[in-house]
Amino acid sequence: MSRFDELQSTGSAFGSAFDRAMMQRCCELASRAAGLTAPNPLVGSVIVQSNEIVGEGYHPQAGEPHAEIFALRDAQKHGENTAKGATLYVNLEPCNHFGRTPPCSEAVIVAGVRRVVIGMRDPNPQAKGGVETLRSAGIEVTVGVEESQCRRLNEAFIYRVKHRQPFGILKYAMTLDGKIATTTGHSAWISGPASRQQVHRLRSRCEAVIVGGNTVRRDNPNLTSHGESEHNPLRVVMSRRLDLPVAANLWNTEVVQTLVFTQTGADLSTAQALRQQGIEVVELELLTPKAVMSRLYDRGCMSVLWECGGTLAAAAIADGSVQKLWAFIAPKLIGGAAAPSPLGDLGLEQMSEAIALENLQITQIEQDFLLQGYLKVSPPVI
Amino acid sequence: MSRFDELQSTGSAFGSAFDRAMMQRCCELASRAAGLTAPNPLVGSVIVQSNEIVGEGYHPQAGEPHAEIFALRDAQKHGENTAKGATLYVNLEPCNHFGRTPPCSEAVIVAGVRRVVIGMRDPNPQAKGGVETLRSAGIEVTVGVEESQCRRLNEAFIYRVKHRQPFGILKYAMTLDGKIATTTGHSAWISGPASRQQVHRLRSRCEAVIVGGNTVRRDNPNLTSHGESEHNPLRVVMSRRLDLPVAANLWNTEVVQTLVFTQTGADLSTAQALRQQGIEVVELELLTPKAVMSRLYDRGCMSVLWECGGTLAAAAIADGSVQKLWAFIAPKLIGGAAAPSPLGDLGLEQMSEAIALENLQITQIEQDFLLQGYLKVSPPVI
Repeated sequence: MSRFDELQSTGSAFGSAFDRAMMQRCCELASRAAGLTAPNPLVGSVIVQSNEIVGEGYHPQAGEPHAEIFALRDAQKHGENTAKGATLYVNLEPCNHFGRTPPCSEAVIVAGVRRVVIGMRDPNPQAKGGVETLRSAGIEVTVGVEESQCRRLNEAFIYRVKHRQPFGILKYAMTLDGKIATTTGHSAWISGPASRQQVHRLRSRCEAVIVGGNTVRRDNPNLTSHGESEHNPLRVVMSRRLDLPVAANLWNTEVVQTLVFTQTGADLSTAQALRQQGIEVVELELLTPKAVMSRLYDRGCMSVLWECGGTLAAAAIADGSVQKLWAFIAPKLIGGAAAPSPLGDLGLEQMSEAIALENLQITQIEQDFLLQGYLKVSPPVI
Repeated sequence: MSRFDELQSTGSAFGSAFDRAMMQRCCELASRAAGLTAPNPLVGSVIVQSNEIVGEGYHPQAGEPHAEIFALRDAQKHGENTAKGATLYVNLEPCNHFGRTPPCSEAVIVAGVRRVVIGMRDPNPQAKGGVETLRSAGIEVTVGVEESQCRRLNEAFIYRVKHRQPFGILKYAMTLDGKIATTTGHSAWISGPASRQQVHRLRSRCEAVIVGGNTVRRDNPNLTSHGESEHNPLRVVMSRRLDLPVAANLWNTEVVQTLVFTQTGADLSTAQALRQQGIEVVELELLTPKAVMSRLYDRGCMSVLWECGGTLAAAAIADGSVQKLWAFIAPKLIGGAAAPSPLGDLGLEQMSEAIALENLQITQIEQDFLLQGYLKVSPPVI
């Protein structure tokens, strides 16, 4: 896989080349826990003495210490006072509050760090203030090095904090003539093995993946990360009438749980049967993408992947539950006036009403192309 | 516009760097007449003495002398015997037969050229043999320098000669969710101004452009090259029932002619009205893409552009009238289960039956992407 273009550069020229390289290292470390930290952000930290890295760390998951603490501990291996007079790099402002752990700003001050370089301020009002605390303690603080990259890394976290709902990603794979299946509904496979592996990797970085009843009935998917990581997303099914098959791969919860959302008035015997198989069934008064996203927010979900058909995908876009698109395009033509396309009705009649995508990236994945972009809404999502 | 990737390199490593650079210059010169030479190929020629170009030329249009002759004439400006002992580069084997002009191989021999470097052999059996004639005359001949690029340049010519039908190009512009219009049929505009300019340029390199009656009724297009070149393609309408509007931009033939193909049994009063406006109406027993392509072959067409809706596009693909695809993808979502996609029914029910595209190129054109590829059939089209 090679990314060969990016319409809008995410790199910032702010900061020295060394500072930027160290911040990139922070992002790299942070990424190691992708999919594991929700509802916490991805954070990595590096401690530098005389232009040499003497400590590294990242936040592995909620409840565990923050990245700065791991980096300080790592530095201590070189001697008790290794961090004294050092520069600490971290992609997110050190926290300033007592959460499950004591504030990082305190730990940084106690360790005698001379300078702190921060990628971006914390969007969480509760966690903010780290910069001021550090400065009050006489520490030199630089904020905004590789900020775009840092924001991109934590786009789901930022979105969740600002909008109090998970960050929605819609993924589909279509032919070059815009079809996600043949006229008979046959869809295996549109994209190639490397693209499907990318999807498995994407799932491993999400907390939940959603499909509709149609997808369960038609494709009987597993929706796991297929060994790309130990983490699998919670599998979510939206089914208004609960007209779901009794046997389905999703009802096998050995690897990861499945959660079914339905609507008041659905077939209770199916609900019963599903519950007997260990599936949680949640009845909502009105089954909408937004309502489901709200419940997933309550469960701490940060990134939620929509892997559904066109009708549900359009509903999710229409009610603001999709912020980002992953569109795989396979170099093949299948035709079919009645063959399904990625999106059902959005109620748009003029081409000028189309929803624009911004910050588009195109990546070549073997024979396929992956177009990623953000749905343009104002104000910007992150 | 920047081409930023090419799945399969068209460059050949055969020949010295100098020879390859000279052959690229030949292709560049040849391209100047793109759209004007049909049914002749695009040919450019360069004459080199002591590593310096002393003559250049290209074939401007059928009936005019070939590229080698123009290059030799150009060299003569430096003195009568400038080509003596020189190397002549040409992207296509010099012709060996008396057509509308005397054979080029003769002229090259007479001029005293010492070495001839050729991009590719002539696929036209009538024109072949230039290489042998030159070698018999003691000239050193190298064949195959930048052959892929030379073949690509003349792909339409090669296809026409080998298959006795014009080279068909299908062009469409779709949203990132695979739609060529909204549910109400509204389609202006999907792609941006730079992409549309590329289409105008493409038209100027084609001999004909085809639409169906629906496109005339719905979009009332001009189908000209909009000043991108002085050349405009013949505009062709396929209409089984001749249920065409009385007034349409295509009936204004001041810039270029329009040709309407219909089927026996069509509305003769419309045919009459069209003819009175100077439009040629041709009645075929059975109106198929193939039959139309056959008539356009007879008229000397080499590249024919399909700019039609999904139904006609699918029919053209199904009967082998499309060899190449130009798919513009605009970064926007419009939705609509009933909104049209680029292709109607191809009768394919399994995804594994999809028509593959090969030698895919992707180009970024402002905010849009252009995917170009060849429909995979065996044997390969060129």
